[in-house]
Amino acid sequence: MISGSPSVPSRSAALAGHVAETLRGRGFELAAIQVRELPPAELLHGRVADPAVAAAIALVERADALVIATPIYKASYTGVLKVFLDLLPQFAFAGKVVLPLATGGTVAHVLALDYALRPVLVSLGAQHVVNGLFVLDKAISLSDRGVAIDADVEARLATIIDDFAASVARRALAPSARSAP
Amino acid sequence: MISGSPSVPSRSAALAGHVAETLRGRGFELAAIQVRELPPAELLHGRVADPAVAAAIALVERADALVIATPIYKASYTGVLKVFLDLLPQFAFAGKVVLPLATGGTVAHVLALDYALRPVLVSLGAQHVVNGLFVLDKAISLSDRGVAIDADVEARLATIIDDFAASVARRALAPSARSAP
Amino acid sequence: MISGSPSVPSRSAALAGHVAETLRGRGFELAAIQVRELPPAELLHGRVADPAVAAAIALVERADALVIATPIYKASYTGVLKVFLDLLPQFAFAGKVVLPLATGGTVAHVLALDYALRPVLVSLGAQHVVNGLFVLDKAISLSDRGVAIDADVEARLATIIDDFAASVARRALAPSARSAP
Amino acid sequence: MISGSPSVPSRSAALAGHVAETLRGRGFELAAIQVRELPPAELLHGRVADPAVAAAIALVERADALVIATPIYKASYTGVLKVFLDLLPQFAFAGKVVLPLATGGTVAHVLALDYALRPVLVSLGAQHVVNGLFVLDKAISLSDRGVAIDADVEARLATIIDDFAASVARRALAPSARSAP
Repeated sequence: MISGSPSVPSRSAALAGHVAETLRGRGFELAAIQVRELPPAELLHGRVADPAVAAAIALVERADALVIATPIYKASYTGVLKVFLDLLPQFAFAGKVVLPLATGGTVAHVLALDYALRPVLVSLGAQHVVNGLFVLDKAISLSDRGVAIDADVEARLATIIDDFAASVARRALAPSARSAP
Repeated sequence: MISGSPSVPSRSAALAGHVAETLRGRGFELAAIQVRELPPAELLHGRVADPAVAAAIALVERADALVIATPIYKASYTGVLKVFLDLLPQFAFAGKVVLPLATGGTVAHVLALDYALRPVLVSLGAQHVVNGLFVLDKAISLSDRGVAIDADVEARLATIIDDFAASVARRALAPSARSAP
Repeated sequence: MISGSPSVPSRSAALAGHVAETLRGRGFELAAIQVRELPPAELLHGRVADPAVAAAIALVERADALVIATPIYKASYTGVLKVFLDLLPQFAFAGKVVLPLATGGTVAHVLALDYALRPVLVSLGAQHVVNGLFVLDKAISLSDRGVAIDADVEARLATIIDDFAASVARRALAPSARSAP
Repeated sequence: MISGSPSVPSRSAALAGHVAETLRGRGFELAAIQVRELPPAELLHGRVADPAVAAAIALVERADALVIATPIYKASYTGVLKVFLDLLPQFAFAGKVVLPLATGGTVAHVLALDYALRPVLVSLGAQHVVNGLFVLDKAISLSDRGVAIDADVEARLATIIDDFAASVARRALAPSARSAP
């Protein structure tokens, strides 16, 4: 899981966390990268040899699949997310299944997922970018007691997680899944 | 196969034809829709009840997978292709695997595949838009004796066709593959 | 004015008509191209020598500025609009000011204007694509008595038309405005 | 000028510097923001109250026009650039003229300017995003003695700078140029 929100707490990170819990319940092993917790100067100056940055990149390399979550700012993914994606090798997502998730204050930004984020994920060589979800901020409540997600969003997430899990499982059947493009 | 070239002969149609022959050789059953051969007035005025248009739409509905080929004009897919896609039901590609192919005169138009065409295919509900290919016009020779495709393009096509065929085959294993989003 | 709706009556054409009337009231001379009224076979097969098609292309060439209206289908502009744009010379919009307008059933398609249509207009060499407007279908009522547009949309249109008219007027001051890129 | 390269020296920053020198020679007053020199943690965590970050944002607010330069990574603008754009007010570019510049290793990334960067600049309310330029890395040589730019690129830059300067000058004639959208 890669979360690209600059703020804490974050609705997009909470959304990704909910997806992660569901996947863990199905036997997936998960690791989370909160980009904002990586060393800021190393990220911005592209120092991939920094141990914390290198460890995050290695996590991506070892993953079979990725959940990528971002709020939508200025009609696109966040700079925070892109700063991390910029540090990855050119075909870092080759052979991997990717699930994109976004949150935003207005339905008017829905298409940012497919017109802005998806081309970047494809350029990283993703084997399959499954159909993701854009969720309105107001459908996610953050409080001291945790995260509450609207029932209709949870239902749509369940379908999307099914699709994602099935794609990861099918991928395991494909002998060439890990080959570079 | 859906081919969206306005001209005959067409390099993008020839490219799609080459992919089709390869797929037929692997046991796939194929049907081709040349949009430019459908009744022009019915297409442009959105008359989906016209028998020829309705038959083309029914072919799309019955397909497990689609190869979609277009030349790149004005930094995007052709109007001819989009005229046909506009007539399809909202989630016409639900549960289907889609392979996008494009041809163009300049490498400068490569990204039109991912930034322009792919979002439209995703909006049609495609289950998996596999990584497609942009081919330079000069790599495809059309003559009376048939089509000749540069060797390096053929090699890349072979990998892409493998990936596409594997995705279609894996899809057959997924019980929910045909459900709408 | 270029209107790319496949149907009659059309909300996007009505929107463009409203803008046209306002511009006429300010002393602009206008000509309208309804793509769906051009000869369908000639459009689809790219026959630019056809007299009706050639006349429409000549209108574009003579224009100082263009209003381009399209409904949003499948997360993008219509194929009908693109079929006509595909017939234009490569830099047909060089030195011209362009105002893009779109209509759609859902706010979720707002970004199609900037992510899908604008790159095509820029590729045609437009000197200035002013900030356009996406209008919800329900804000435009079509009836026997004519077109009714919601007051808040009319107010936003007024600002946009001001901006467009000012850009066309400023353009007249620039000696190089008609040079190709 | 806003430069979004993570590295030093940078071809995109050199390109922007060349444009800046030319504009200075024409009487423009310029200020440069190198995003990578702003405090990294403050940038990534969105702390707009930090004095250095606040000063950079104030520079943008005071500007009549902006030159924005970025290398293309992963088929889009850099995260470093977007991190800064994300901190700006929603309509920070209202009434301003914007010139986008990009550099990249391959012509295949040309369209990233219009499909990825331009929609973000438009979402910031830019009054006019003039036609920018994508320059191949190999056309810009960096050495101890300074920057050398290929003659044909310099010639195209001269035309683009003319267009940009004319748009800024015309803007000064428009009484409403600074109003928000």
